[in-house]
Amino acid sequence: MKRIAFSLAAVVSVACIFAFTPRASGHPNEEASPNAAPIYGVTIPPGYRDWKLIAVKQLHFAGKGEQLRAQVGNDIAIQAFKDGTLPFPDGAIIAAIHWTQIPSEDNDKVLDVPFPGTHSFVIGSRVNVQFMVKDSKKYASTGGWGFADFKDGKPGDKALHETCFPCHMPAKDRDYVFTRYAP
Amino acid sequence: MKRIAFSLAAVVSVACIFAFTPRASGHPNEEASPNAAPIYGVTIPPGYRDWKLIAVKQLHFAGKGEQLRAQVGNDIAIQAFKDGTLPFPDGAIIAAIHWTQIPSEDNDKVLDVPFPGTHSFVIGSRVNVQFMVKDSKKYASTGGWGFADFKDGKPGDKALHETCFPCHMPAKDRDYVFTRYAP
Repeated sequence: MKRIAFSLAAVVSVACIFAFTPRASGHPNEEASPNAAPIYGVTIPPGYRDWKLIAVKQLHFAGKGEQLRAQVGNDIAIQAFKDGTLPFPDGAIIAAIHWTQIPSEDNDKVLDVPFPGTHSFVIGSRVNVQFMVKDSKKYASTGGWGFADFKDGKPGDKALHETCFPCHMPAKDRDYVFTRYAP
Repeated sequence: MKRIAFSLAAVVSVACIFAFTPRASGHPNEEASPNAAPIYGVTIPPGYRDWKLIAVKQLHFAGKGEQLRAQVGNDIAIQAFKDGTLPFPDGAIIAAIHWTQIPSEDNDKVLDVPFPGTHSFVIGSRVNVQFMVKDSKKYASTGGWGFADFKDGKPGDKALHETCFPCHMPAKDRDYVFTRYAP
């Protein structure tokens, strides 16, 4: 259940993306990497933390507190979002970064006097990061997307990754991507 | 009061930054621009929406609903955040983008069966964008920062901008910047 919860959270945040790193052989993921996600063979794409912002979300996870989330994309993904291109072109990668959400005492001190009852929430710590990588041939059986979920740099297991695509199915008319580009 | 609220929200989000655009004359802000913020003369920096992500916040504004917020920075600001450089070097610009927060029916449909009581919130529409621009000489009297607040591309009035720096005072030990770089 925990695994499913983890994966669904990813799906909802439109986070699942592939971290696909081509190998020198020209046959990516031909050899298993200890840091590659199961099923899809995705690894963490270098520099994703500096990618451009797609959108922001907040999740109230019943019994598990709140999360703040940001979706970022590589240049191919960002351009597709801006142009409204569907399906996303091959090479597009979307990353969803999830953090715990905590109250900000610093911010609330400033807000409290003029605006009683107003509260500010900030990022606590990293929970996980998820990737969706578009490769229409390689991942033809999962809508052209490969999915990956990493926590502390390590991929989740096979059971977790088996839940990614089914959860994204309801967004089929948007090429399985829930996230919309923020104005 | 509305103006003060607006400004404080900006401060809390560590958003206030200057959108400083040099003029061809070499004397920026020498001539008043209809799109420049009062007091500081800041204009909206081109391309800021594509700047790198610093952090994400959420605000529960008593009686006014919730906001989702993202802080992004130009390369100078991002590098300073990563290195922990204080004070921020001249040229650093931080932008805070504020949106309304709305429930996501699409996401909730996916979450509802396995996780009753879990809810996802996404961006509704743009509220405003704020800038802090570091120029230790030009803005020596306000901690080296110039502040600006724009709504629909138009800057707020003088009264609004007079509230920016006082609200940032409590963060003096972090060079008047509330936002911390997200892991």
